[in-house]
Amino acid sequence: MNEDASARLSRRRLLTGAVGLGAAGLGGAAMAGRALAGNADNLPPHVPEWTRTLGDGVGVRAYGQPSKFEKHVVRRDVQWLTASRESSVSFTPLHELDGIITPNGLCFERHHGGIAEIDPQDHRLIVHGLTDKALMLTLADLKRFPRVNRIHFLECAANSGMEWRGAQLNGCQYTHGMVHCVQYTGVPLKLILEEAGLKPNAKWILAEGADASAMTRSLPLAKALDDCLVATRMNGEMLRPEQGYPVRLVVPGWEGNMWVKWLRRLEVGDQPWQVREETSKYTDLLPDGRARRFTFVMDAKSVITSPSPQAPVAAKGFLVISGLAWSGRGTVRRVDVSLDGGRNWREAKIDGPVLDKACVRFYAETEWNGEELLLQSRAIDDTGYVQPTKDDLRKIRGTNSIYHNNGIQTWRVAPSGEVENVEVG
Amino acid sequence: MNEDASARLSRRRLLTGAVGLGAAGLGGAAMAGRALAGNADNLPPHVPEWTRTLGDGVGVRAYGQPSKFEKHVVRRDVQWLTASRESSVSFTPLHELDGIITPNGLCFERHHGGIAEIDPQDHRLIVHGLTDKALMLTLADLKRFPRVNRIHFLECAANSGMEWRGAQLNGCQYTHGMVHCVQYTGVPLKLILEEAGLKPNAKWILAEGADASAMTRSLPLAKALDDCLVATRMNGEMLRPEQGYPVRLVVPGWEGNMWVKWLRRLEVGDQPWQVREETSKYTDLLPDGRARRFTFVMDAKSVITSPSPQAPVAAKGFLVISGLAWSGRGTVRRVDVSLDGGRNWREAKIDGPVLDKACVRFYAETEWNGEELLLQSRAIDDTGYVQPTKDDLRKIRGTNSIYHNNGIQTWRVAPSGEVENVEVG
Repeated sequence: MNEDASARLSRRRLLTGAVGLGAAGLGGAAMAGRALAGNADNLPPHVPEWTRTLGDGVGVRAYGQPSKFEKHVVRRDVQWLTASRESSVSFTPLHELDGIITPNGLCFERHHGGIAEIDPQDHRLIVHGLTDKALMLTLADLKRFPRVNRIHFLECAANSGMEWRGAQLNGCQYTHGMVHCVQYTGVPLKLILEEAGLKPNAKWILAEGADASAMTRSLPLAKALDDCLVATRMNGEMLRPEQGYPVRLVVPGWEGNMWVKWLRRLEVGDQPWQVREETSKYTDLLPDGRARRFTFVMDAKSVITSPSPQAPVAAKGFLVISGLAWSGRGTVRRVDVSLDGGRNWREAKIDGPVLDKACVRFYAETEWNGEELLLQSRAIDDTGYVQPTKDDLRKIRGTNSIYHNNGIQTWRVAPSGEVENVEVG
Repeated sequence: MNEDASARLSRRRLLTGAVGLGAAGLGGAAMAGRALAGNADNLPPHVPEWTRTLGDGVGVRAYGQPSKFEKHVVRRDVQWLTASRESSVSFTPLHELDGIITPNGLCFERHHGGIAEIDPQDHRLIVHGLTDKALMLTLADLKRFPRVNRIHFLECAANSGMEWRGAQLNGCQYTHGMVHCVQYTGVPLKLILEEAGLKPNAKWILAEGADASAMTRSLPLAKALDDCLVATRMNGEMLRPEQGYPVRLVVPGWEGNMWVKWLRRLEVGDQPWQVREETSKYTDLLPDGRARRFTFVMDAKSVITSPSPQAPVAAKGFLVISGLAWSGRGTVRRVDVSLDGGRNWREAKIDGPVLDKACVRFYAETEWNGEELLLQSRAIDDTGYVQPTKDDLRKIRGTNSIYHNNGIQTWRVAPSGEVENVEVG
């Protein structure tokens, strides 16, 4: 038997022997099952409405929308979390998605002064400071520059922040939903800085947004010249308003707060600006009273999106465990999955493209017969870094932190198939 | 000077010497330019409304939408083209996009009986015919199978069909807008057929849709077992209604008509079914009265999306020419661009991932000083196939055809910067 045929047989045993996906075993299709029992070539026992009548023609929705049966697949926010909705978060429904591309309408939101609704005709990007000349660029100017396309994840530094003190929120949408992954189109920041001309003492860049919070962050010049983009597009089309329309900074692998939205100003300087968002916020208070600062990189992390509290196990038998992994230091080399809370690990299969500082999708297949599971995943990146346990993180950083929790997440699968967020050992 | 520094200098010359993108040269930013002239570190001369007021908070749009300033970026149809809008086409605005991913809301539509609005609870996929057993699968069943993620282009066989008789429609949205490219998540069709068990004489598959046209096509078994998917998702989320929600066939590289939407039935047989869509339609009438049939593969093709009739040249100087290329036989190996109607060619830069049967994005940089250009692009795939001229195609196939026009497209750039669809040679 050749390898292909052998793999096929093994797959078939997996599906038929244990799972019974065949018509006879399908509880949910009993009516149809009866029709099939009489004559395997029968058509379905009824002709549904949508086959009997013409549907809407073209042009009814010039810009398409999801099916009305998918209304539950939306970003959700937690109103008790923040004092106002203008400075708050809505989370990506990771448990309702697959693959690595996040559709633009479901990319999580994090605003500090609400969504700036910018008229692109009136928007300018200023580049000044330690440069040979100052630039004031219109959107039309930006669109004339050479551009590149890169698929990158964007993770808020506060993603999983509520988990520092133990399992809190029941669903990966809330525990991990401040991450998304799209294809950006943008001008390499390096080209724009070269156009302005850098003075010899240039070392840092200040990026400032045009929103009501005038969000500002300091960015080391080396990163700016490496892989940052001044992006105007996501997944082909112009940025969405809540993602910085018409222009945002893309800072691959680094915390989302630095990806300044509604970008209006880039100042070149010789030291960081020590702005609010890198001093009183976006720093991590350690047990000894000192704070970690300029913690730019989002370290390797992963989460199982299905099963998960919002996506319980549907039936006993063959089960595909699936999730996302990413690393701000490069590519994900491997993802391991545990069914028993981290005692035993097996390598998951990574499917689809493995790209620099982008999400990967992983799958692990198993057989579930109603026993309790403690599901975990851990990402290993191409630097050899292994995603740590939450306890390992707490030993070093204590529990005062909000940001940079990349600890291993645990989901408990109950005999009923329901799933809850738990802490282990 | 190291290579990097040399490249940088060369780039700077490109931008500053010739293009004058610096503040002094920016006609569109004159007011701001004055402010900058006095003090290069000045902020913009006014604080816009969106900086002075809080914007909408999170949750205002649980499913996000494009900016109100992008309302012109929509699918468009041509009402004189078809007798009814239920059996018609709307086109992807390729000239408004960049990168390779098409956002779901802008993927072109082609319906034969309107959009079936399917309640997923009531939908079944039947697998029967020359199989060991018949299957009737619910959507929940399908979601339990192993799945994969693949980025593929989908092109309607009739894309560019109106160009057989010469330049017709003035814009790549209309000449080439029946192509899109997304990441699909689906079950390999091979796994589903193996679950049913194939009889030894199985050679063809009939795929049937649940829409009012009950769209049917015959598919060779070898292709079905190779890379076809039974897909439920595009760009992470569930398929859009107009793209076959909740389940469609993905037939990578083959004509879009075979990617049966609203998939309800797969019948296994020993010969093709000779249905309407592979006899009176989706065949090519040759000059001698015979017709080409079962012309499944979409051959290598490309189009310049900017500049193009709907995206004229904005200004003299540095110009980035950009477009899409794809091949149904594998990957795109190279794209060439001509500025003079095909007399001279230069290699374009392919940017972003190069994937099997997926679009690639290409760029070519030039200097434009108001002279007439005859812009063309040609794709070369990894089989060595070179995209032909329209005349070469007509020599063999005549001008009766509607389908499979992958000829080289020509855009004439006038001294005004306006662009029109023309024929050369």
